Amino acid sequence: MTSPIAPTRAACEAFDRADPLARLREQFELPPGVLYLDGNSLGALPKSTAPRVAGAVRNEWGTGLIRSWNTAGWMDLPGRVGDLIARLIGAGPGEVIAADSTSVNLYKVLNAAMALGATSQRRSILTQRDNFPTDLYMAAEVCRAHGGELRMVRESEVMTAIDPATAIVMLTHVNYRTGTFHDMAAVTRAAHDAGALVVWDLCHSTGALPVDLTACDADFAIGCGYKYLNGGPGAPAFVWVHPRHVNRAEQPLTGWIGHARPFEFTAQYAPAAGIQRYMSGTPQVLGLVALDEGVRSVLAAEPMGGLTAIRAKSVALSSLFIDLVDARCREFGVAVVSPRDPARRASQVSLTVPEGAYAMVQALIDRGVIGDFRAGRDGDPDLMRFGFTPLYTSAVEVFDAVETLHAILAAGVWREARFMQRAAVT
Amino acid sequence: MTSPIAPTRAACEAFDRADPLARLREQFELPPGVLYLDGNSLGALPKSTAPRVAGAVRNEWGTGLIRSWNTAGWMDLPGRVGDLIARLIGAGPGEVIAADSTSVNLYKVLNAAMALGATSQRRSILTQRDNFPTDLYMAAEVCRAHGGELRMVRESEVMTAIDPATAIVMLTHVNYRTGTFHDMAAVTRAAHDAGALVVWDLCHSTGALPVDLTACDADFAIGCGYKYLNGGPGAPAFVWVHPRHVNRAEQPLTGWIGHARPFEFTAQYAPAAGIQRYMSGTPQVLGLVALDEGVRSVLAAEPMGGLTAIRAKSVALSSLFIDLVDARCREFGVAVVSPRDPARRASQVSLTVPEGAYAMVQALIDRGVIGDFRAGRDGDPDLMRFGFTPLYTSAVEVFDAVETLHAILAAGVWREARFMQRAAVT
Repeated sequence: MTSPIAPTRAACEAFDRADPLARLREQFELPPGVLYLDGNSLGALPKSTAPRVAGAVRNEWGTGLIRSWNTAGWMDLPGRVGDLIARLIGAGPGEVIAADSTSVNLYKVLNAAMALGATSQRRSILTQRDNFPTDLYMAAEVCRAHGGELRMVRESEVMTAIDPATAIVMLTHVNYRTGTFHDMAAVTRAAHDAGALVVWDLCHSTGALPVDLTACDADFAIGCGYKYLNGGPGAPAFVWVHPRHVNRAEQPLTGWIGHARPFEFTAQYAPAAGIQRYMSGTPQVLGLVALDEGVRSVLAAEPMGGLTAIRAKSVALSSLFIDLVDARCREFGVAVVSPRDPARRASQVSLTVPEGAYAMVQALIDRGVIGDFRAGRDGDPDLMRFGFTPLYTSAVEVFDAVETLHAILAAGVWREARFMQRAAVT
Repeated sequence: MTSPIAPTRAACEAFDRADPLARLREQFELPPGVLYLDGNSLGALPKSTAPRVAGAVRNEWGTGLIRSWNTAGWMDLPGRVGDLIARLIGAGPGEVIAADSTSVNLYKVLNAAMALGATSQRRSILTQRDNFPTDLYMAAEVCRAHGGELRMVRESEVMTAIDPATAIVMLTHVNYRTGTFHDMAAVTRAAHDAGALVVWDLCHSTGALPVDLTACDADFAIGCGYKYLNGGPGAPAFVWVHPRHVNRAEQPLTGWIGHARPFEFTAQYAPAAGIQRYMSGTPQVLGLVALDEGVRSVLAAEPMGGLTAIRAKSVALSSLFIDLVDARCREFGVAVVSPRDPARRASQVSLTVPEGAYAMVQALIDRGVIGDFRAGRDGDPDLMRFGFTPLYTSAVEVFDAVETLHAILAAGVWREARFMQRAAVT
């Protein structure tokens, strides 16, 4: 037993009654009959988002037309949303912009970090081999362009693998497969001690874990808008650069909105001061207004303790889930691959099963329990992933989800042919 | 007189009554009291867009949640919207994707074109010096990275400036300042004859001018979703690559959605076959569904002749505008800088005034006539720009707009202090 919640439905109900975050669930549209344990992949819809987006469409665009670039503040949206995100990652006002995708933003910061940190002797990017693929692909491309080497090591070997050839340590704070997370301060310190810069991917952290980029003295960070930030499918991503670096490097996607004076339409590029130079094309207004509402749904926890309270509930829920899976599903060969130590586990728990993880996830979805499947690679096993989003997930839901999993295992329903066929997106 | 419409309000009314495209205006939300002549910068809102976006937010995201990547076809949106855009630019199904921004897409295709076309002797990108700034900035960066030279010449000198050192001719089909457009077939032929590739920026063409990339044998093209395609502020942009090139080059923004099998989560990048490899990050769903509606608002003209009919009406309206400006505003020093020959003029007309173009545009907006201002640079003058969007602009509106301009000039109201102060975005 690791959770403060005893593994009974009555104890879960008692926890939920006492939960100071419980009323934040009222912020969200959640379909009836669904237990949603996939907010780590796509956050739920805040109730405020539909009217906000509708207002942007009908009033700002439809009525304001081109005037809204000024009157509705569209041009400043990347920075205003960035300032909200900054409060969740230990960054200051004016240090974050929301724009483009995680992949594109990673390209910007990796190139800037190479420009700052690479020398003839120091050209490699160090990462872990089970980092999210887009990170590996982007880093490989940046290494190719800079004549560097992409070194991929095991998660446990990252700290010791930093060497004098390492220009950049690029890590995703929280592992997307297992939910393990790095000690950001320790890794950053080790990298700096070896003369390297650190790029943190906060996709699976922001909005779920307390992060303090300033206190950790990090160098660069990027992250996702559509997971724990509830920004909607394909929401804009974000970029942070430490103020000591921001004006010392340029990024290569030198679009007009990153220019110091875009409306002078000069032929020569001159990067804007500060984080604005990490902008490229025209701000994607509809995505930004939805993201704005999503970030506000997380900031709504500030009066109840903010990310500290979110984190405490997340640990309680994920520990409860592990206790229940151990008690009810271990006999079927279900195993927890996420760390059992909550100090190393972020806001998700991943499970392996002897066979049929994909079909089992489909059978769960069929019964209203939504988690997701991640295919194994390079000898790692197929996984079932379950995310815990304290803004809208209750202890009773965790209890009921494991009961459903138990029922599917006990009856073998996941072996039905209809659950076996893979969809295009898994 | 160059327009088929005589410069009287009665003749304009008669033209509008006979206009086969007139009923397409019913597709759009246009605010009362506004004459909108800026669809070349931000297209108007289709009536179908607000309910479509609301459905995507409430039903697909809110209710479908993560399942909608499959059940609502989110993953295929870039290609499905691309297939609609393809019909407007002479491209085939499966040849276009909608994603990212114009700036970011330009970076992708310029790098791919360099990879295909550059040699040790052939490394320069040729463009015109008054190209849109983002094109110049991106091309400069790509040249820097590839050790090439960005050559900027006058519009009239482009054809003769192509030489054996030219790897890429990069042009915006329609000049954003003057509305002049290039002979796409002739320039492409000249470039190919010299061994160069051509990248066309279709930002100010798509949806306004007939474009046939296949017939012109073009190599690469990118374009904007928020101008004549009515996709909304900051809408996703698009990319086309000729099928003969598409699998021969890679682009550097190697995000996971451009991978051949993204959901296998392999550590090595392998580009997808076809235009899908020009994807990078997760599709921006809200922007894409709005763009889908916008493109459909243009395709709605297909039964009435499509872009041929749109172009004929555009020429009639812009010619009428020139005739009226000549008749009513020339005495105040207003001059037409766009080509008077409609065979060289796209769907906008730009004017110069002896002083105060910015203030004059503000005074017009104050009276409900919305055009825009573009600051002069490098010796080029400040401009007032007026765009003609045949899907929702009538001849009577053109007449009334010029009457308003005349009234402002005659009374000198643009000299009022409130019109002089520059806004952040102009």
